[in-house]
Amino acid sequence: MALMTGEQYIESMRKLNLQVYMFGKKVENVVDDPILRPSLNSVRMTYDLAQKPEYEDLMTATSSLTGEKINRFTHIHQSTQDLMNKVKMQRLLGQKTAACFQRCVGMDASNAVFSTTYEIDQKYGTHYHENFKKFLTRVQQNDFTVDGAMTDPKGDRSKAPHAQDDPDMYLHVVERRPDGVVVRGAKAHQTGFINSHEVIVMPTISMREADKDYAISFCCPTDAEGIFMIVGRQSCDTRKLEGAPMDTGNPEFGGTEALVIFDNVFIPNDQIFLNGEVEFAGMMVERFAGYHRQSYGGCKVGVGDVLIGAAALAADYNGCSSASHIKDKIIEMQHLNETLFGCGIACSALGTKTKAGNYLIDMLLANVCKQNVTRFPYEIVRLAEDIAGGLVVTAPSEIDLRDSKIGPYVDKYLKGISAVSTENRLKVLRLIENLCLGTAAVGYRTESMHGAGSPQAQRIMISRQGNLEMKKNLAKAIAHIEE
Amino acid sequence: MALMTGEQYIESMRKLNLQVYMFGKKVENVVDDPILRPSLNSVRMTYDLAQKPEYEDLMTATSSLTGEKINRFTHIHQSTQDLMNKVKMQRLLGQKTAACFQRCVGMDASNAVFSTTYEIDQKYGTHYHENFKKFLTRVQQNDFTVDGAMTDPKGDRSKAPHAQDDPDMYLHVVERRPDGVVVRGAKAHQTGFINSHEVIVMPTISMREADKDYAISFCCPTDAEGIFMIVGRQSCDTRKLEGAPMDTGNPEFGGTEALVIFDNVFIPNDQIFLNGEVEFAGMMVERFAGYHRQSYGGCKVGVGDVLIGAAALAADYNGCSSASHIKDKIIEMQHLNETLFGCGIACSALGTKTKAGNYLIDMLLANVCKQNVTRFPYEIVRLAEDIAGGLVVTAPSEIDLRDSKIGPYVDKYLKGISAVSTENRLKVLRLIENLCLGTAAVGYRTESMHGAGSPQAQRIMISRQGNLEMKKNLAKAIAHIEE
Amino acid sequence: MALMTGEQYIESMRKLNLQVYMFGKKVENVVDDPILRPSLNSVRMTYDLAQKPEYEDLMTATSSLTGEKINRFTHIHQSTQDLMNKVKMQRLLGQKTAACFQRCVGMDASNAVFSTTYEIDQKYGTHYHENFKKFLTRVQQNDFTVDGAMTDPKGDRSKAPHAQDDPDMYLHVVERRPDGVVVRGAKAHQTGFINSHEVIVMPTISMREADKDYAISFCCPTDAEGIFMIVGRQSCDTRKLEGAPMDTGNPEFGGTEALVIFDNVFIPNDQIFLNGEVEFAGMMVERFAGYHRQSYGGCKVGVGDVLIGAAALAADYNGCSSASHIKDKIIEMQHLNETLFGCGIACSALGTKTKAGNYLIDMLLANVCKQNVTRFPYEIVRLAEDIAGGLVVTAPSEIDLRDSKIGPYVDKYLKGISAVSTENRLKVLRLIENLCLGTAAVGYRTESMHGAGSPQAQRIMISRQGNLEMKKNLAKAIAHIEE
Amino acid sequence: MALMTGEQYIESMRKLNLQVYMFGKKVENVVDDPILRPSLNSVRMTYDLAQKPEYEDLMTATSSLTGEKINRFTHIHQSTQDLMNKVKMQRLLGQKTAACFQRCVGMDASNAVFSTTYEIDQKYGTHYHENFKKFLTRVQQNDFTVDGAMTDPKGDRSKAPHAQDDPDMYLHVVERRPDGVVVRGAKAHQTGFINSHEVIVMPTISMREADKDYAISFCCPTDAEGIFMIVGRQSCDTRKLEGAPMDTGNPEFGGTEALVIFDNVFIPNDQIFLNGEVEFAGMMVERFAGYHRQSYGGCKVGVGDVLIGAAALAADYNGCSSASHIKDKIIEMQHLNETLFGCGIACSALGTKTKAGNYLIDMLLANVCKQNVTRFPYEIVRLAEDIAGGLVVTAPSEIDLRDSKIGPYVDKYLKGISAVSTENRLKVLRLIENLCLGTAAVGYRTESMHGAGSPQAQRIMISRQGNLEMKKNLAKAIAHIEE
Repeated sequence: MALMTGEQYIESMRKLNLQVYMFGKKVENVVDDPILRPSLNSVRMTYDLAQKPEYEDLMTATSSLTGEKINRFTHIHQSTQDLMNKVKMQRLLGQKTAACFQRCVGMDASNAVFSTTYEIDQKYGTHYHENFKKFLTRVQQNDFTVDGAMTDPKGDRSKAPHAQDDPDMYLHVVERRPDGVVVRGAKAHQTGFINSHEVIVMPTISMREADKDYAISFCCPTDAEGIFMIVGRQSCDTRKLEGAPMDTGNPEFGGTEALVIFDNVFIPNDQIFLNGEVEFAGMMVERFAGYHRQSYGGCKVGVGDVLIGAAALAADYNGCSSASHIKDKIIEMQHLNETLFGCGIACSALGTKTKAGNYLIDMLLANVCKQNVTRFPYEIVRLAEDIAGGLVVTAPSEIDLRDSKIGPYVDKYLKGISAVSTENRLKVLRLIENLCLGTAAVGYRTESMHGAGSPQAQRIMISRQGNLEMKKNLAKAIAHIEE
Repeated sequence: MALMTGEQYIESMRKLNLQVYMFGKKVENVVDDPILRPSLNSVRMTYDLAQKPEYEDLMTATSSLTGEKINRFTHIHQSTQDLMNKVKMQRLLGQKTAACFQRCVGMDASNAVFSTTYEIDQKYGTHYHENFKKFLTRVQQNDFTVDGAMTDPKGDRSKAPHAQDDPDMYLHVVERRPDGVVVRGAKAHQTGFINSHEVIVMPTISMREADKDYAISFCCPTDAEGIFMIVGRQSCDTRKLEGAPMDTGNPEFGGTEALVIFDNVFIPNDQIFLNGEVEFAGMMVERFAGYHRQSYGGCKVGVGDVLIGAAALAADYNGCSSASHIKDKIIEMQHLNETLFGCGIACSALGTKTKAGNYLIDMLLANVCKQNVTRFPYEIVRLAEDIAGGLVVTAPSEIDLRDSKIGPYVDKYLKGISAVSTENRLKVLRLIENLCLGTAAVGYRTESMHGAGSPQAQRIMISRQGNLEMKKNLAKAIAHIEE
Repeated sequence: MALMTGEQYIESMRKLNLQVYMFGKKVENVVDDPILRPSLNSVRMTYDLAQKPEYEDLMTATSSLTGEKINRFTHIHQSTQDLMNKVKMQRLLGQKTAACFQRCVGMDASNAVFSTTYEIDQKYGTHYHENFKKFLTRVQQNDFTVDGAMTDPKGDRSKAPHAQDDPDMYLHVVERRPDGVVVRGAKAHQTGFINSHEVIVMPTISMREADKDYAISFCCPTDAEGIFMIVGRQSCDTRKLEGAPMDTGNPEFGGTEALVIFDNVFIPNDQIFLNGEVEFAGMMVERFAGYHRQSYGGCKVGVGDVLIGAAALAADYNGCSSASHIKDKIIEMQHLNETLFGCGIACSALGTKTKAGNYLIDMLLANVCKQNVTRFPYEIVRLAEDIAGGLVVTAPSEIDLRDSKIGPYVDKYLKGISAVSTENRLKVLRLIENLCLGTAAVGYRTESMHGAGSPQAQRIMISRQGNLEMKKNLAKAIAHIEE
Repeated sequence: MALMTGEQYIESMRKLNLQVYMFGKKVENVVDDPILRPSLNSVRMTYDLAQKPEYEDLMTATSSLTGEKINRFTHIHQSTQDLMNKVKMQRLLGQKTAACFQRCVGMDASNAVFSTTYEIDQKYGTHYHENFKKFLTRVQQNDFTVDGAMTDPKGDRSKAPHAQDDPDMYLHVVERRPDGVVVRGAKAHQTGFINSHEVIVMPTISMREADKDYAISFCCPTDAEGIFMIVGRQSCDTRKLEGAPMDTGNPEFGGTEALVIFDNVFIPNDQIFLNGEVEFAGMMVERFAGYHRQSYGGCKVGVGDVLIGAAALAADYNGCSSASHIKDKIIEMQHLNETLFGCGIACSALGTKTKAGNYLIDMLLANVCKQNVTRFPYEIVRLAEDIAGGLVVTAPSEIDLRDSKIGPYVDKYLKGISAVSTENRLKVLRLIENLCLGTAAVGYRTESMHGAGSPQAQRIMISRQGNLEMKKNLAKAIAHIEE
């Protein structure tokens, strides 16, 4: 069963004993909850597409560990072609879900932990790399979805982990036993945790000696004892409860965000990937962030494709698609979106082999890629709102449209061109609302901003990677400056 | 009773017999409906502030019709100082509500209709100006809130009003009687209709002879027979029903949008301001649009002030307000916001007297003002989301925070700096969500885009007003070009 | 002789004994030097226009000191209308010269020194205000052009004046005598010094006690003993020597920049406006900078008008002025240019009266104005280069065009539409080159960036003036936050 | 002699009998002319670097025609790795010259003509591909520099070639002989023609049947009978004549632009690559443009590296490199520059094999790349001017600095930090002037705008390549729209 079907994935999730809370209550049936289900459907798409022959090249790969055919989301990248295929796969998934499909974070964590554990073992003679390979083999064989959990709540941003008033603001080891460690803390903004079988936990920043207990990385099942999740609110989340699917804009797919609490969770030794080797915390973070910043050059581009298509449809339905300013705005949206894709491809094409043998993206270009992602989707959204018109935020509800008394008026007055039904016009406007202001805006805008690190984090990396001294020397040579 | 108190305003609204539909049902108590009430509260603020001595200069004026002290929202501008005070008043209201307070549209319609009717009467010997002055005197004496209704549904944007498949896609006269006319059609995106006593209806575009029946302007009570409203959905609208005020971000104030249908409404002759004089439709539209584009240089700036303050608070609460990049982003937000204000002030300061005696803004600069408003709030929002961090879209619900079991975990892990409670931190993040993605984003973003005309409408006006031939002559003189 | 004619101005400049150096040589005839003359012609325009009845309102004012009609460039602003007229006058001059006309700096220095000296005298009982009024009366009566000299060379930017390795990097008092002081130092980037009769010298930054000798302000003739100027190079400066006026783009007008050295210059007591009262150095700097930042909302807008006209002409001559993307770019240029004008008008309209009685611009908006000027002209230039086409930088010389053998080929192949001569087409392209890359780019681009203070200086002022605490309180009120 | 040394290249150019005119005179010694020599030096660098072992991988390739080691500039791309190496080579050259090194255009023309001639021959049984391979073999064996000449003067842009008033506004066949054709016309904006041994001439736009005589492509020596060049003026061109190398900013390297006239030039049959097959004119243009748009993702990035280094040096020398806003601006410059590089790499990495066997870039991403190049260098320039300070445009001449009397004052007052000489400080500022306003700005700014096609040309291609219908279908699937 190296590849699960979508249906098998859903069933596998039913077997987990996840502790999920939402609106103050424990969610009894996580899989079928109407608010959570769209995000599960998004992950499911990673399974469904892997079954289709036309996507086989993108969606599957040959395992470097077992030689078997596996889902690319569980793959360790063996070449720059693998890195580019990853980005193309992500764009495809974005196109098919118009949402965050959540499974990238585990792939990115796996590739980061794979190479980092190798280098830790080289220095310290530890066995983290073996631990990790064993874990990943199991993941590949079972076609698991894996979450990667990095972001701690952080409390006062001006203080280091050990200097926080509450020591739990960063996840840390609270007890050391012969057979493992007990950890406490939380991971915020966990997009795919609820839909994952396993999680890879990593530290969130570079650390110094005083933060030793915080330099901890490991894997565990998402329903391990002591773990529970509190679902975050999203714009328009409860629309999914109203029984009016049209109003959600995207009735089938979505994302979730959860605060995940590790309340004294025991981690056996063979699930540990980092444990106090503080100088490697930064490497793990940077590599994960690098891979994940590359990811945004794929997934958000796919979502952007849907938004561009929706805006173009809205223009068609409004009868203004031949206006030159409309055409120009759609070109601009495409230009911006393809620039993001170009950056995702470029950092892949210039990837290099790590000591452990897998491929790492070009770190400078991966950060440049993400930095653009913190800007262009906002402009694409702005242009989509421009093209679509004000009805995106003023149209009555689906219930009004279906109502026997009010409905005919809605139908009459909100019609665009004659050839298109008011219902279809409203559907595309709701999709635009969903992506610009609604649940999907959480993923397309705010996650584009902060996912894989906030903008300033990329700027710091660009500064470090930019080799400014070399550039100064170029200038000196040209200007005939001798110091 | 030239000035109502806020409470009197609320009571006056109870007396109206408004026909309002929402989610397929007639709203029985419009004033106390939890989804609609915040928008009523916003209008109420225009009454409350007019009672306060410290705002007397901005909030009130001396009527040019009666000599009495009136609310500035019912005033006919007598000077450029009046025009500037209008903008300052709007900024103040934006600051106090962080929402659309809806009363501008009637003020802008009044000033446009005042001068246009004067010029129609001059040409045709009609009595529209008298009709209008009579109407406005009543408005001022009763301190009414007046809606201005312009935007027709428009159907197929590539066709003129009379050429639409459904003749009702633009509001028009369907019957002419000795004592008045009967009109049919609809007005879309009506922000303040539900909270207004009266409405001024205007055409939405320039017209030619064939559109004669569409060249109609008039006033009538908002509860006139044949008028009914269907409330539009807004992002996060139903959060207001949950009994968790914190999650709304702005528990007290908001806006609404409604589709207003005029289903064979009779308009007596003395309420008519334009009736078939097609060449004046364009003048009325341009002047109204001009005033309303000026308005955005006030109201959105006030909302921007709140968002800037919220972002700065969030930075404080996160413990990162001294980071140089944070400070720089806040400066940028202020710079952009003040640029908008500057444009609002400038088109006022360069205003000129109309033939009718009231003051008209500088049309070029008013369009420039609005064009900037279609851009900068989006960038301000982007920067706010950057500063605030991802928790804006991932924080659990207020119900979780208040829950006895889950609440303590939320409280513990979502704390920022020690000096500030988690509750306050979440409140400010919810306010940012509200303005960037939630109900207020409808007003701050999409309305900034399309209110008072979509961006392309301003570009057309800039092109017309820009006097390009004069500029070519300047260039010829400098380059010594003789043709 | 309260108003000189342009010709009288030129003659008055001949009488000065200016010490000007250029390319290693002393310039014997400053007035007729072909490199310097265009900048003199620009100043002359401030005299010529003041003679024309149609510009009387803008170009002249009634002196608050003498009651006589004076050139507005020597005026002390008596109202917000004066402040707005100043901006309009500057736009007019920019339109007529497409260059820096240099006389603003003295006007801005005068208004800053007028109010600052009043407040110093109030505190210290000094007589600076009387000194200044006496000086200005003479300026008004003689219709002098006055330079305002602020920017010191500054040496190592990370060190205060007194801490520089070379104490002369900021101009300072080197000797104190009973009848006056001796100063030494230099002022950089002096745009109009060479074309001025008098200069007002001011400190360039806020100061502390240790910088007491640097807190010095005074006036003196530009040909005072010990003063000499070294002319700075400008892009394409020597084209003016080639006898091919067409290639200069703007054959008549231009600007200059000079490094002015004060090599032990004696300043009599009654010409001193500040002398060691360190806490007022900052006020003088801020007020001058404020006025001068306002100025850019006028002068650069006028130059922008010429560039917009030139780009539109180039499009006409190329036969592509009806292409929608060309039209849209011209609209964008106008939009940006008018935004700058709007900011210049707004900070004027919201000006306030100083203790000394003259009017000060709104400091926040003046800084916002200038901040936009550090951005938009660059985008206007970019759009102009886009519209004009590559020929702007690849066209052969005027000498080629005039050549009997080569000329006909140039004439044949560089023709645009049939109705326009190649010569005229090339003239307008040269004007665009002049403004985008040539001598005028120094004024339109780099001076827009650094004149009246570099961008960061405005950001610091925006931060100080932005009242962030008030905005935080607005947000707290809306979000119901109680601390 | 498959690889010439730089010196051999220079000598080979001496042997040509080029007809070059400048300032109305024939240039007798083209190689040693001080205005032209810097551009020759730039081309020479493509030979010098190819001799260096450390650049062998980038600078050389194995010929697909002869199997010999050749300069990559004469190579037919055999893989996506070749395409990426091309971009890296161009960045290297840009770094080493800070100018346009001109040899790309022949490489791009070669690869476009190679694949297009193959497809023409397939359809028509012509022998263009053989002609071309014979030509290119000779080029590779002799290591020639080849110009690619595309842009016709175009006259009235609103008219097709055959519809121009003067039929010569597009280069065309004026006589057909058994052994060849005679052509007349001109090619504008020819950057490297003067420094090339051979030229490939191509049509400049898609054509229809009526333009048959204009659908002509061929090669010939640059000194063929009937060809002559008129050198275009560049900003600051004559500074190179002054004997003050410092003032040029870049004393060694530069570019040129020439108008090249084909005054009845005979082209033998075996040098012809297209002759009337109108439907292939568009393919040749698009492919050439595509390759050349890719090129800008390399060469301009290299120049950008120098400008970034120069700005960073200027900040060091000013003593302000640790200011946070300076650091942030340098990061932004790097971010923008690397985005351009990323686009150049991406369109290469996604290249595909043509029918003829060579590799073509991804056309969509190549156009996206160039579109960004029409924007970002302008912003990089703006930031460089911001960082460098006003002295860039106000510093006295080198002659002043060297003067025994004035020099010491310049040296004293224009010093920055103590550790750096004034001379070095001025040198780096002159380099910035050169790149932002001077001769190199022609290449870095205007050529970035118009080279390889003006911005609108890319937008048209983005529109064509963007597959909007597919995106509409994505949106329909997500929104459950069935038509």
